Amino acid sequence: MSDPIDRLAHIFEKFPGIGPRQAQRFVHYLLRSSPSLRRELVESLRDLSSTVHQCPECLRHSSAKGMCVICSDSRRDSALLAVVASDADLMALERSRTYRGMYFVLGGMISLASDKVTGLRLPELNSHVARKKEKGLSEIILAFPANPEGDATAIRVSEDLATSGVKVTKLGRGLSTGSELEYADPDTLKSALDNRK
Amino acid sequence: MSDPIDRLAHIFEKFPGIGPRQAQRFVHYLLRSSPSLRRELVESLRDLSSTVHQCPECLRHSSAKGMCVICSDSRRDSALLAVVASDADLMALERSRTYRGMYFVLGGMISLASDKVTGLRLPELNSHVARKKEKGLSEIILAFPANPEGDATAIRVSEDLATSGVKVTKLGRGLSTGSELEYADPDTLKSALDNRK
Amino acid sequence: MSDPIDRLAHIFEKFPGIGPRQAQRFVHYLLRSSPSLRRELVESLRDLSSTVHQCPECLRHSSAKGMCVICSDSRRDSALLAVVASDADLMALERSRTYRGMYFVLGGMISLASDKVTGLRLPELNSHVARKKEKGLSEIILAFPANPEGDATAIRVSEDLATSGVKVTKLGRGLSTGSELEYADPDTLKSALDNRK
Amino acid sequence: MSDPIDRLAHIFEKFPGIGPRQAQRFVHYLLRSSPSLRRELVESLRDLSSTVHQCPECLRHSSAKGMCVICSDSRRDSALLAVVASDADLMALERSRTYRGMYFVLGGMISLASDKVTGLRLPELNSHVARKKEKGLSEIILAFPANPEGDATAIRVSEDLATSGVKVTKLGRGLSTGSELEYADPDTLKSALDNRK
Repeated sequence: MSDPIDRLAHIFEKFPGIGPRQAQRFVHYLLRSSPSLRRELVESLRDLSSTVHQCPECLRHSSAKGMCVICSDSRRDSALLAVVASDADLMALERSRTYRGMYFVLGGMISLASDKVTGLRLPELNSHVARKKEKGLSEIILAFPANPEGDATAIRVSEDLATSGVKVTKLGRGLSTGSELEYADPDTLKSALDNRK
Repeated sequence: MSDPIDRLAHIFEKFPGIGPRQAQRFVHYLLRSSPSLRRELVESLRDLSSTVHQCPECLRHSSAKGMCVICSDSRRDSALLAVVASDADLMALERSRTYRGMYFVLGGMISLASDKVTGLRLPELNSHVARKKEKGLSEIILAFPANPEGDATAIRVSEDLATSGVKVTKLGRGLSTGSELEYADPDTLKSALDNRK
Repeated sequence: MSDPIDRLAHIFEKFPGIGPRQAQRFVHYLLRSSPSLRRELVESLRDLSSTVHQCPECLRHSSAKGMCVICSDSRRDSALLAVVASDADLMALERSRTYRGMYFVLGGMISLASDKVTGLRLPELNSHVARKKEKGLSEIILAFPANPEGDATAIRVSEDLATSGVKVTKLGRGLSTGSELEYADPDTLKSALDNRK
Repeated sequence: MSDPIDRLAHIFEKFPGIGPRQAQRFVHYLLRSSPSLRRELVESLRDLSSTVHQCPECLRHSSAKGMCVICSDSRRDSALLAVVASDADLMALERSRTYRGMYFVLGGMISLASDKVTGLRLPELNSHVARKKEKGLSEIILAFPANPEGDATAIRVSEDLATSGVKVTKLGRGLSTGSELEYADPDTLKSALDNRK
């Protein structure tokens, strides 16, 4: 594929949620746009590689050198560790302003299609937990999405952490905001009944 | 409106979720259909009025004379009473095969547009609870949808039942099946964290 | 199915676009509604059978006894006859206020699933055309939807009318309002090019 | 905005159809992806600027140096010129394999919000037409979308080309594939009737 238009469209097709037609539209948008916007895009992409760092503690990406703002915040509760699948899920929990513990970004979930675990930071999680346990970690919260991939990942991580001696919990299930009983599935209704209060 | 086509369309427009155009389609469907289908529809509607009874206990509608199959089932747990907004919500809970207590159908929810409570069977609920308390009722579960109307109704019903002396609970909130953290609202995430286990 | 709730839901399920769940909602709506609304519905349905007549000319349904308002309007152009699939399509063309000829309602389209032609008023159309030809009919417009069923019906009706000696045309194809070239199919683009002006 | 993550997300937000959340997901996707993919993206973007050329005739972009494959194809009909809004619309017409004339890419449409014509290649179109008229151009087809922007652009371009002495046509309107009469707007039905054949 030597044609630069096709080659760029092919890369955009790999972006999450982007099909061939929208990938083409992106390329046409860039062709129509000013050279300065294209230059800015190239520079931002280079900056991403050179100035974005991975936090050595929670493994998320940010522009902070060394520990990220959360991991270096002494007011946060180091007894709690939320294991999340991605940076995006970490940010979603932060936006809810309800969680004050620490994080660990697993880097993905078990794909049910391939059952592969490549890329999950399981060894890193184990050693992270061992290290934090000495500093008072008392509960690990598996904060994965309520879908089959999230469930499979939670089972795998729970097994891995069984020997750590730290209590492992999962996010509660129930009616989420906006749920109608009529359209709720049996599992959700069961959780809603079990978690009534 | 003396035209029978318009008059019938006008009635169908009142059906839940039906706009003017689909109401028209219903009438045209009936015009095209066989006289026997129209006759069957008329007979079924008449039967609905004559043979459908309201259960004197839970106030839901069914073809059972006297108490419905649930209220007359001695194996169900009479210590638990789920207050639901509608027959449809009662049936949704039954489909989940997870609840084994009794029901009370409130007959609606508080409309936030009008804040009216007309039609809600609040006096009936109060006397029902008083009666059942003597027979061992120990918990009332408010099983309303997780939306503003459901919340407003739950607040109102809780106030009404405060003097009954029976414990009042609400369905638990959290991630419902399929929820992604990224798209969950802060309330849902907060509940999911609070209900972790 | 002796339960009147289920029996009524079963009839509503046959209504166009209505699934089992919405059929249930209709029944619950009727159970909650006043006896007078149910009575009115029964009466309107009976009126539909007793006071709606089929126009002896175009075969559409209306409350007019004898010929309908269109067929009895001497200002309309009797040289043009639009053959439509349904009363609803006739009304759609009338709403556009662009057509001033006469109509014939075929009563359906050829189903591609079954290729059945039962219920189509093909013999009635043939004798109608023969009769109208003597009174100056010069063009028959096949006004069917632009979908496979409409196309199959147009082919069949064209064959049937071939011996009538009257010119048969079809609605023009092209870009409909709102169409973008990017999302138009090749057939539509070809028609749009052929019909350019 | 010095944070490279935010800066990149901000650029992606400008892409057609991309909101803040999906822009964030793109950045996270790139952070998770391999350095080689990011490098490939940077290189493709640079190639786009350096190796994509604008055809001097139709003004579309492609990797061809000099005239594009369509403009240099002697078998195409130089008597016909389709004026399209964008490269994407040109490609849509080519996909339909029904048009064998030449193209001119106008580079946009009149925005009804601002009524601005900045960026439209109107002077270029005029001189292009003058040049081609001497070489046998006999019809200009305005191939714009069937929406208000397309209509406004067609009116403006028609006015501009009035003095050229070349016949100007527009793509035909009518039922597009899949259209039902019931949901068609009056304009479309009028065109469908006018273009019947």
